[in-house]
Amino acid sequence: MSEKNITRLDAFTYRQILSEDDPVVLIPVGAIEQHGPHMPLSVDVLLSTTMAELTADRLGAALVGPTVTTGYKSQQRSGGGNHIVGSFGFDAETVIGVCRTLVRELARHGARRIVFVNGHYENYQFLYEGVDLALRELAPSGEVPQVMLLSYWDFVTEEVIARLYPEGFPGWDVEHGGVMETSLMLEFFPELVHMDRVMDLPAADLPLYDLLPVDPSLTPESGCLSSAQAASAEKGQVLAASVVEGMTEAITSRFTV
Amino acid sequence: MSEKNITRLDAFTYRQILSEDDPVVLIPVGAIEQHGPHMPLSVDVLLSTTMAELTADRLGAALVGPTVTTGYKSQQRSGGGNHIVGSFGFDAETVIGVCRTLVRELARHGARRIVFVNGHYENYQFLYEGVDLALRELAPSGEVPQVMLLSYWDFVTEEVIARLYPEGFPGWDVEHGGVMETSLMLEFFPELVHMDRVMDLPAADLPLYDLLPVDPSLTPESGCLSSAQAASAEKGQVLAASVVEGMTEAITSRFTV
Amino acid sequence: MSEKNITRLDAFTYRQILSEDDPVVLIPVGAIEQHGPHMPLSVDVLLSTTMAELTADRLGAALVGPTVTTGYKSQQRSGGGNHIVGSFGFDAETVIGVCRTLVRELARHGARRIVFVNGHYENYQFLYEGVDLALRELAPSGEVPQVMLLSYWDFVTEEVIARLYPEGFPGWDVEHGGVMETSLMLEFFPELVHMDRVMDLPAADLPLYDLLPVDPSLTPESGCLSSAQAASAEKGQVLAASVVEGMTEAITSRFTV
Amino acid sequence: MSEKNITRLDAFTYRQILSEDDPVVLIPVGAIEQHGPHMPLSVDVLLSTTMAELTADRLGAALVGPTVTTGYKSQQRSGGGNHIVGSFGFDAETVIGVCRTLVRELARHGARRIVFVNGHYENYQFLYEGVDLALRELAPSGEVPQVMLLSYWDFVTEEVIARLYPEGFPGWDVEHGGVMETSLMLEFFPELVHMDRVMDLPAADLPLYDLLPVDPSLTPESGCLSSAQAASAEKGQVLAASVVEGMTEAITSRFTV
Amino acid sequence: MSEKNITRLDAFTYRQILSEDDPVVLIPVGAIEQHGPHMPLSVDVLLSTTMAELTADRLGAALVGPTVTTGYKSQQRSGGGNHIVGSFGFDAETVIGVCRTLVRELARHGARRIVFVNGHYENYQFLYEGVDLALRELAPSGEVPQVMLLSYWDFVTEEVIARLYPEGFPGWDVEHGGVMETSLMLEFFPELVHMDRVMDLPAADLPLYDLLPVDPSLTPESGCLSSAQAASAEKGQVLAASVVEGMTEAITSRFTV
Amino acid sequence: MSEKNITRLDAFTYRQILSEDDPVVLIPVGAIEQHGPHMPLSVDVLLSTTMAELTADRLGAALVGPTVTTGYKSQQRSGGGNHIVGSFGFDAETVIGVCRTLVRELARHGARRIVFVNGHYENYQFLYEGVDLALRELAPSGEVPQVMLLSYWDFVTEEVIARLYPEGFPGWDVEHGGVMETSLMLEFFPELVHMDRVMDLPAADLPLYDLLPVDPSLTPESGCLSSAQAASAEKGQVLAASVVEGMTEAITSRFTV
Repeated sequence: MSEKNITRLDAFTYRQILSEDDPVVLIPVGAIEQHGPHMPLSVDVLLSTTMAELTADRLGAALVGPTVTTGYKSQQRSGGGNHIVGSFGFDAETVIGVCRTLVRELARHGARRIVFVNGHYENYQFLYEGVDLALRELAPSGEVPQVMLLSYWDFVTEEVIARLYPEGFPGWDVEHGGVMETSLMLEFFPELVHMDRVMDLPAADLPLYDLLPVDPSLTPESGCLSSAQAASAEKGQVLAASVVEGMTEAITSRFTV
Repeated sequence: MSEKNITRLDAFTYRQILSEDDPVVLIPVGAIEQHGPHMPLSVDVLLSTTMAELTADRLGAALVGPTVTTGYKSQQRSGGGNHIVGSFGFDAETVIGVCRTLVRELARHGARRIVFVNGHYENYQFLYEGVDLALRELAPSGEVPQVMLLSYWDFVTEEVIARLYPEGFPGWDVEHGGVMETSLMLEFFPELVHMDRVMDLPAADLPLYDLLPVDPSLTPESGCLSSAQAASAEKGQVLAASVVEGMTEAITSRFTV
Repeated sequence: MSEKNITRLDAFTYRQILSEDDPVVLIPVGAIEQHGPHMPLSVDVLLSTTMAELTADRLGAALVGPTVTTGYKSQQRSGGGNHIVGSFGFDAETVIGVCRTLVRELARHGARRIVFVNGHYENYQFLYEGVDLALRELAPSGEVPQVMLLSYWDFVTEEVIARLYPEGFPGWDVEHGGVMETSLMLEFFPELVHMDRVMDLPAADLPLYDLLPVDPSLTPESGCLSSAQAASAEKGQVLAASVVEGMTEAITSRFTV
Repeated sequence: MSEKNITRLDAFTYRQILSEDDPVVLIPVGAIEQHGPHMPLSVDVLLSTTMAELTADRLGAALVGPTVTTGYKSQQRSGGGNHIVGSFGFDAETVIGVCRTLVRELARHGARRIVFVNGHYENYQFLYEGVDLALRELAPSGEVPQVMLLSYWDFVTEEVIARLYPEGFPGWDVEHGGVMETSLMLEFFPELVHMDRVMDLPAADLPLYDLLPVDPSLTPESGCLSSAQAASAEKGQVLAASVVEGMTEAITSRFTV
Repeated sequence: MSEKNITRLDAFTYRQILSEDDPVVLIPVGAIEQHGPHMPLSVDVLLSTTMAELTADRLGAALVGPTVTTGYKSQQRSGGGNHIVGSFGFDAETVIGVCRTLVRELARHGARRIVFVNGHYENYQFLYEGVDLALRELAPSGEVPQVMLLSYWDFVTEEVIARLYPEGFPGWDVEHGGVMETSLMLEFFPELVHMDRVMDLPAADLPLYDLLPVDPSLTPESGCLSSAQAASAEKGQVLAASVVEGMTEAITSRFTV
Repeated sequence: MSEKNITRLDAFTYRQILSEDDPVVLIPVGAIEQHGPHMPLSVDVLLSTTMAELTADRLGAALVGPTVTTGYKSQQRSGGGNHIVGSFGFDAETVIGVCRTLVRELARHGARRIVFVNGHYENYQFLYEGVDLALRELAPSGEVPQVMLLSYWDFVTEEVIARLYPEGFPGWDVEHGGVMETSLMLEFFPELVHMDRVMDLPAADLPLYDLLPVDPSLTPESGCLSSAQAASAEKGQVLAASVVEGMTEAITSRFTV
């Protein structure tokens, strides 16, 4: 865990950084969710935190955390579905409440620029609502921080995608447990990946709609929506570099003007 | 409004259809939201309802409605942003509550197959949550309907996209107030479209993140994310045919097996 | 639909009217609810909207809509009961949330005078709560609109009642699906009324209390609480004139001082 | 306080009565609300409890309480308005929650027949919602009690009204702090009434609508909507007899079939 | 009931006291909960109200009430458990809502100093949350009252404990239905106590954890967590004196500086 | 992190353990909260997780996690107060929602015995409510797990307390940032403790009540409620041994009968 992670700091140091450096605060948002037989349930927590920490290292005055672990329910077309044992799906109300509190509390602490770094596809809209409600609540005080919301994979460049997916890119939604996530895990948490357990199945052939109750037969046996067979630490390094580069630029250009 | 629209039926007829025909019930989900100077605030309501009604006509035993008009807040990257006067943005809790009730009530009425036909990009996740909560609540009764959730534009085929966007397709998110929606409106509600008022601006160049509070300068003056200049009723006809064809097939194959 | 209906306007026109004319905004509040074998489920939506539109035409600077369609659960003594298939009953929380949002959003748009025109008996208290919560939330901003709440039938004068109900007026609560609503529908939406399907039953003899779970035997077979046999378009015209006259006067005298 | 009041019983006796007598449980629902210069804030609590206790005495197997004191906000047309200092107005959500819990807990205790005896005009719809939600929640258990909801004044007969209001009856809504409530208080709690402080003002001339924010000038100085000058303990006795007679008959006929 | 109890006052007197005396307002918080075979369900309501009233008598400018009767669910280690018939357990949301409203309404009335006098062990944290939310809501108005929260038994001095419990003090949690509560009831409400029904059982031997669903065998048959055998009105007098002395001093020293 | 921590497991292994070993699942519950100048904000997260993991190692079939990091607001008498920058205080609703979901999801996964291991004083009642609501919701399914709730410090034996606090034990509430927590951190996370930064101040002299808004002067400058000067890894070892021994015995005796 990075030295920029808020949860590692004592309160006196945290207060000093906030008042002296006016840092950007990056909040990783993950989930506890099945990621196939070859990766742990905490992939989205670990990767959103890592992307945030690496970006913070590039940003100068920046802090990271605390990481949100209460992710929204896994949906079949992006995470296999919340019927699968191993995924912990939180209701919209709770995810919204957690994000809302983080904004409220960070604003009280004096943070003026916050970035939510999402690492679980399903979270995004609820995170957005949490931020919107917090800003509405803060408005009368006149102390409204600027908040940026993003999903880290959106910053992988077209060039990198073309390079890493020579046979065509299936889309970030079906990347669940696939090449991107597995490569990043291999690069940063190799001890938690078991490539010998990868199930090399065809990418999920999911319909253009969601169905509830879920039809379990639509999710591959592995729980992954595409195969991780082609994953490697090298790809993870390239992906991370692209993500961190893009996020750093986005944050810098928006928040230092 | 179609003869299959529930809101036009009397209760006796509605009950007869439900008990005799076991119809699929399609629920359009829209919003009241600005769509530029050339289209009314009700575009998402009108188009989701129309797509649902046309599909119902193809399905045999099917009913439509009531249409959800309480759409989630417009977001800048898909609807221009909820800071714009003319958009009515409902909180997550309310959108979820409306969809949840519709499922609960339709289940009480005896409907066994329900399709939510979304026509406002931002709604999807909240609609999903509403359905999920309803099914959880209904589970102890043993009377759980099957629910399909979709956004109608996802059924436009690649071929149609290639044909209608010869210079490249910008993505459904920036289609807000653009060629697709305007063409469909020209085909079905020409009296509500004023092509002479179209502002022919470049497509919005939106960042890879959301920012709250919104930076209004990122939304084009028109409120539309791409230009509607190339819209036509003919394109609307092609788009609608593609959508209805796709939705009909999806519903038929899923719900009659 | 009237040209004063917000949902028909484009956002540019809407903004112009708001800033130049300082209009009163009338929000119709209905429900999707059974109204016997002779009228559609949308009676309360259609009539509240029509009363609002006719009044807006009389008011000068006025706009109408969007109409609330998510009405509170039908209660046996005013709507037959929510056990009847065909009525869509929304929970208090949702009805409150919808009305609250409308006030919040209209205030953001710059509307300073709002009138809720209720057309579904059961809604009133929840509508009141929604408005009250919205004003409490808006108070810190100092931008609190004036909001009037009414049920349209309360503006039918004693004279009209005496004229139209020569054998005695049973009360607005048991008017559900009876002479008033049917006459208004005959006047404004004759194509949706089937007088040949009216069930000419005695008025419901309901107790002085509610019972839950409902005893279905207390509601007449028709679902109507009194007979619509005596309804006519002429009566509808007289009723509408009385309502519009009264509402216009109430709004004018309150909002132009 | 009556010996039938649950709050006076010890748990062992309470359990014995529940299991041996299968009693009807009457829940009074009041409010803490201004009632002019001549009566205390607890009028609605005291009277709803007294009417319930007197009825319980007539019913045989019956228990009373606990009394709900968290009444909904006073509204101008029935209670003078919640802007008045002295009224404690609870939000819909809380009133609903309190009533819902009472039903759930009484059902757990084994009560099979419950009567809510309302004594604060504004409560009714929220009480209804609380009961409805409780029964929905209890449905899967198969242990759903029968619940009756009423406002006690509805049981005053036409004859009594004609006798007590020889100059015409103004309606229960403007009875707030007027002849009925004051007479009942004089009969049952004379030590809490100060007839010398009655402000003998004309009945409130309230419009056909609610206005928020409230226009305080519409409520008489006294906070009462009609004058209590004509109140007397004798009238209180007559009113109570009529109410208790009516409630007893309603409960008996409904719950012993 | 004391003359300082708000619920006994008329609104005119209440307003006069508030504006002229700037009183401290004490809000008792109880519950309807089983207290064994020898005491009524309202023990916590009666004792919290009495402690508040006696303290108010000592304070000079002070008012009491209204008493909160909607206590949180009885927990096994402090109240025997909410599985016992006779306890009415309200959800956190409702207890929070009730306390929140009381603060909001008292602030609106002009009260600047409020003391919550808790008499039901389980309530405390929910009462705290209610107050915290109310103050957050009131902050933008700049009218934030000072609120003190306490449980009355915490003010019994060590000396008194040593005197009254010569064989060792078991802790306030297991005092449920024991010597303290019974002695106070004997002193103030002797007609409601039946010492001949006391079940003289050993104090409950409860584990260091809660278990849900509750294991009913862990609660003594009596429902009390310790025996009331040694209770007496004299002890009640001593306890009350200690409590009132301590509360008076705490309030005086905090609120008159 | 222990190998028994769920978040480190892949879903296939997790499912195998659940179905083959029928493990007890321990859920640590912490907070992100200031703990003085010498310890990080994550003390409660780290210690609750460590106590759970050590206990799991002793239990045989047991799993740990995921850890709850969204702790309730710091209160002055147990955590210094939530006005202090560095503490992240979540609302009751959110803490309740998180715990409720964990029970619901673990029950869906097939876990039949769950232990919440609390490490943040203020959480307990909200955690209790979350569990209670989850079990109520699960009841109709018939699949209700057994849930144990505890705070780990309650298992330190009297003997250990007497040994480690020779000058008298101040109580667990004022242990915030004091000898116990610091000793445990020194034993398990020495790299995160800076004994040279300990502020050796007298224990907080806190009143018998809470005050809101908080009077900051009542909290020592350090944010700790007692001094950590006497802390040592050795004491940490003794404390941990006592806690783990006690928790193991409690769980074993309750859950294997």
